Amino acid sequence: MEDSTSLRVRYAETDAMGWVYYANYFTYFEVGRTEMIRRSWRSYSDLEHEGYRLPVIESHCRYFHGARYDDQLDIQTRLTLPTALRLHFEYRVVRVNDGKLLAEGFTVHCFLGESGKPVPVPAELRMLVTA
Amino acid sequence: MEDSTSLRVRYAETDAMGWVYYANYFTYFEVGRTEMIRRSWRSYSDLEHEGYRLPVIESHCRYFHGARYDDQLDIQTRLTLPTALRLHFEYRVVRVNDGKLLAEGFTVHCFLGESGKPVPVPAELRMLVTA
Amino acid sequence: MEDSTSLRVRYAETDAMGWVYYANYFTYFEVGRTEMIRRSWRSYSDLEHEGYRLPVIESHCRYFHGARYDDQLDIQTRLTLPTALRLHFEYRVVRVNDGKLLAEGFTVHCFLGESGKPVPVPAELRMLVTA
Amino acid sequence: MEDSTSLRVRYAETDAMGWVYYANYFTYFEVGRTEMIRRSWRSYSDLEHEGYRLPVIESHCRYFHGARYDDQLDIQTRLTLPTALRLHFEYRVVRVNDGKLLAEGFTVHCFLGESGKPVPVPAELRMLVTA
Repeated sequence: MEDSTSLRVRYAETDAMGWVYYANYFTYFEVGRTEMIRRSWRSYSDLEHEGYRLPVIESHCRYFHGARYDDQLDIQTRLTLPTALRLHFEYRVVRVNDGKLLAEGFTVHCFLGESGKPVPVPAELRMLVTA
Repeated sequence: MEDSTSLRVRYAETDAMGWVYYANYFTYFEVGRTEMIRRSWRSYSDLEHEGYRLPVIESHCRYFHGARYDDQLDIQTRLTLPTALRLHFEYRVVRVNDGKLLAEGFTVHCFLGESGKPVPVPAELRMLVTA
Repeated sequence: MEDSTSLRVRYAETDAMGWVYYANYFTYFEVGRTEMIRRSWRSYSDLEHEGYRLPVIESHCRYFHGARYDDQLDIQTRLTLPTALRLHFEYRVVRVNDGKLLAEGFTVHCFLGESGKPVPVPAELRMLVTA
Repeated sequence: MEDSTSLRVRYAETDAMGWVYYANYFTYFEVGRTEMIRRSWRSYSDLEHEGYRLPVIESHCRYFHGARYDDQLDIQTRLTLPTALRLHFEYRVVRVNDGKLLAEGFTVHCFLGESGKPVPVPAELRMLVTA
């Protein structure tokens, strides 16, 4: 399952070096996976209302070039399901202006059910991802 | 009721202008009121466990000089209770290094009880503040 | 000069009370004024390249209802020039879903020139605002 | 080179799940490495004044248990120099209250000199680290 969404760098997200602060790429990753899930399946806030949570259990990012204030960024997101209990999102952050790859990374999540305990990835999502 | 707590500016809190991003002073204000309440009365997390919430209903800040990365800041906090239903916190952000006043502001809060509805400020806190 | 831009609440912007953290409304205000300036005049990043800065010297917000994760918000922004040296932005944060006014506030800015000293608001912007 | 510093979770750092937002662990990592460098060698802001920058080129975190608002956290930091051009920081985030390991991760940095180009890790730091 793949998708792409775009956003603009806010002043709040830059730091005194003049670039986007490194932790904020993980917020961009959140935007990427939220929009991908929404368009492909349903909104994450709906999932929360049904009692699900998708906490992050691992995160990683490589930084190639710094993003600047007001840069328009394309967040390319891909979801795979390596096991019945894991979601693996991969991200590429590309500057729209010149097509440069600024960063890439991944996050690993599990599905928590209403009890707050891990549950298998819902069959409905599994079908969409492997389709 | 007055108190003072100190903190250091993190890189994450600066922006591309080289100073602390203006919204982050409100996070410093949070640190100020949290520590004042903790030392004078009890921790805000204890209050939450008892079912209380203190949402902000108004906030204000004036900026005189920018804080820089790694600056040590003194957050001076004062609490007054203008009415039975309102907490009024005033803050002064002073750079420890040279005693310069960088910003000052206030936040107004109400007390929500377990029902999620406004309740009067607890008598125990009222006594501490007016003492 | 008036404009409106819309955004979605990110998970990163919420807090443990389940609503958007109060300081983050000031980041939404930034998005509002950035987009208004871009559409009406030119991008703030262009202004920075010409050596200008618009630091905030005062900020204020009133909170009526909390925004939740994934809420779509309309940031309505209005710029006035009370004096030759001041920009005054007013903001209204409206939830798109039900048209509810969640918060309103303002920020006051000055114009810094290349020397880092205050300069009058450029005539070009003044004409646009009073037009 | 090893060090440990402690901090308290701010409300601003939590999210609607009730835990610290995953990206904010990287801000805690920043606090850990800043304090370690300051105590062992000199302040990072001094390094910046000398024209150095230490941008992050890779970051990683595993999350075991969520930190809550007001938790006191111990950020344990270790620096190694795998090559002449790389700094490798490892972090462990431990809750002071019960000694539980909440998260662990690493960041990789390079040294940029005044020209903005990569330079070898200064001999002075190299001696401290390998001592």
